[in-house]
Amino acid sequence: MGVVERLELLYAIGDGEGANRPGLSAAEEEAHRLVGGWMQEAGLTVSRDRAGNLYGRVAGRDPTLPEVWIGSHLDSVPLGGRYDGALGVVAALEAVASLMERPERTIAVVAFRDEEGWRFGHGFLGSRAVSGGVDAAALDRRDRAGVSVRDALAELGLGFEPGASWLVPAPGAFVELHIEQGPVLAGMGVAVGVVDSIVGIVELEIVFQGVEGHAGTTPMDGRRDAALCAATFQVAAAQVARGIPAAVVTVGSIAVEPGAGNVVPRRARLVVDARAPDAARVAELEEGIRNAAARAAGEHGCSLEVTAAAHVAPVRCDPLVVEVLGRAAQSAPHLASGAGHDAQILGAAGVPMGMLFVRSLAGGISHSPLEDTTKADIAVAVGVLKRALPELCTRLAEASR
Amino acid sequence: MGVVERLELLYAIGDGEGANRPGLSAAEEEAHRLVGGWMQEAGLTVSRDRAGNLYGRVAGRDPTLPEVWIGSHLDSVPLGGRYDGALGVVAALEAVASLMERPERTIAVVAFRDEEGWRFGHGFLGSRAVSGGVDAAALDRRDRAGVSVRDALAELGLGFEPGASWLVPAPGAFVELHIEQGPVLAGMGVAVGVVDSIVGIVELEIVFQGVEGHAGTTPMDGRRDAALCAATFQVAAAQVARGIPAAVVTVGSIAVEPGAGNVVPRRARLVVDARAPDAARVAELEEGIRNAAARAAGEHGCSLEVTAAAHVAPVRCDPLVVEVLGRAAQSAPHLASGAGHDAQILGAAGVPMGMLFVRSLAGGISHSPLEDTTKADIAVAVGVLKRALPELCTRLAEASR
Repeated sequence: MGVVERLELLYAIGDGEGANRPGLSAAEEEAHRLVGGWMQEAGLTVSRDRAGNLYGRVAGRDPTLPEVWIGSHLDSVPLGGRYDGALGVVAALEAVASLMERPERTIAVVAFRDEEGWRFGHGFLGSRAVSGGVDAAALDRRDRAGVSVRDALAELGLGFEPGASWLVPAPGAFVELHIEQGPVLAGMGVAVGVVDSIVGIVELEIVFQGVEGHAGTTPMDGRRDAALCAATFQVAAAQVARGIPAAVVTVGSIAVEPGAGNVVPRRARLVVDARAPDAARVAELEEGIRNAAARAAGEHGCSLEVTAAAHVAPVRCDPLVVEVLGRAAQSAPHLASGAGHDAQILGAAGVPMGMLFVRSLAGGISHSPLEDTTKADIAVAVGVLKRALPELCTRLAEASR
Repeated sequence: MGVVERLELLYAIGDGEGANRPGLSAAEEEAHRLVGGWMQEAGLTVSRDRAGNLYGRVAGRDPTLPEVWIGSHLDSVPLGGRYDGALGVVAALEAVASLMERPERTIAVVAFRDEEGWRFGHGFLGSRAVSGGVDAAALDRRDRAGVSVRDALAELGLGFEPGASWLVPAPGAFVELHIEQGPVLAGMGVAVGVVDSIVGIVELEIVFQGVEGHAGTTPMDGRRDAALCAATFQVAAAQVARGIPAAVVTVGSIAVEPGAGNVVPRRARLVVDARAPDAARVAELEEGIRNAAARAAGEHGCSLEVTAAAHVAPVRCDPLVVEVLGRAAQSAPHLASGAGHDAQILGAAGVPMGMLFVRSLAGGISHSPLEDTTKADIAVAVGVLKRALPELCTRLAEASR
């Protein structure tokens, strides 16, 4: 079975239109079982860790050398696309299963849990878990149905508890193939690109609390309207991002209470996702957003609560991994990733990492059933991984000598 | 049992904090049964119409004369207060039950269904039904659980179908007592006020449709962000209302899709409630809001759909009813109502109507458990109704001679 057929089988999991495999859901679990079965068929040694991350290993000639990991994630946002995450796992399996020789060191195909963070509002659970980056508070987060991360893990029979990094010994490298989720490669007319850095992400939960009132009898001037306060903030935050090169800010989730058309809202809760390519711009962006929230709260007589739901530091990819991927991808361009990835979490935890992007069609649309690439581009990407993996196994040994 | 005790029994219906009796819900039905029982105990002749409106009649000396109706509604917004609607029904029952003499004409205490319109996004169902103002589309509206108005009526055993007004013969007058829901009477230090006009209300459902994208890889300039478009509109619409004396606009309900923090929203749906005291200002306000929506859509590359969910014309109260209430209330001030009421629907349908407001405490807060008035103010209001009803029965006869 080819990569594209496998992606279709994963896409068919879950209800409704598009991919629908939220982190720690039954649908994500089904994807893990399916891929675990394919790993076994391919002769890989399959295991899963306490956080539910899936590993399929091909034993290397020297089992004492640090492993090479390659993979991505199998969860999706609701109404997601075919390629985000799933491609990186399935293509890695394809590349590893079709290696002509036993590799110098053990290679593990990895599928991390709950990368998207859609369900519990906190991404990268699996890669954070292996690198010691999950705290107890993260396990108490709840989805809209009131199910906590802890409950969801228990439901899947997973006994994960927060603790130190499991990366002892750490892998010698982590490689992640991912669909670009943007328009850059399509604009250049190339199938693949080598990532040299990944943006930093600040996720803030912002709550404005005003005073509820009757929509007809509360004059405009006497209002403390939490929804209007939130709107004022949204407009100002977008202005802040536009003023910082390559920065973006998104308010993708808005909840207004009580939510009746004829009641001035007393409370608005926003999830704010802010990204920039380096630490200085991330800091400038976060400060600008926090100031915009404070100004909006002051203007509308609302109280303000800002909680940092997530901070992901921007990271540079490992020069050796970039060099090896670049050589295997021939004259592929280098680019920055505007999206966060599990590779970033491992990179921040000290694992040398690199990423390969495959071209997005349809304007780079992502997190949508319209997400698209081609079978030919996927074949190019698998070819790059097949060439890069043996070389990486060898070059890592040289680098450590 | 006194008015305050009865209000507490109604307030205790339904789950959770505050009043929770959405239109056509089991909780509203329970309130109707409770009040129907009190009507029977008081010797009134109880009936309900096909839309579920409740009537308790005291037969007049001359049954051929047009009736006088007095009442309000028993539904509430979620987390509502003790007095909104319920006070007007319970106080009317108290006033009618304690009349010393049989009135000249029949008086009906009335409780209308689903005045608030919170559940189905369309208010005044009961008073619209009696006055022929419900169309088939209104019955197809659905609540958040997918239950249509039609389903909810059937669930309650009500066979209402849209049609002509049932007000044949029309009542000679309708009187509604209501809590002010604003700060005016409290500011004047008086217990009651006579309403001389009710604001016009335009309720619009506005949908902005943009293009979904990944929060990290879609540059700010390439975005067609439906939520940011909605925020831009909200800020502009508030400016429009601030520019028109005594006009208000409220966006109390916002739904963003897909609603994930890391996805640029493709769709935002807003419920916009706009009010002004006369037809000219209502028209100016609606035009300004529609223009603001079109400008925001243009600026953000979104498509725009505006649906008029409701239009309630501003109405002047009937001079005779105002005069009789004013005499019964002695030197009570006159004021405009910023809130819509069932009286407005009946007034627009040609029924001479008037309203009495009782003072709101707590800054006039309404649609909240904090809504407040005093037992003494309620007693003043009941006294006004008791004096006004017999006089109204007589004066109507004079007016029609």
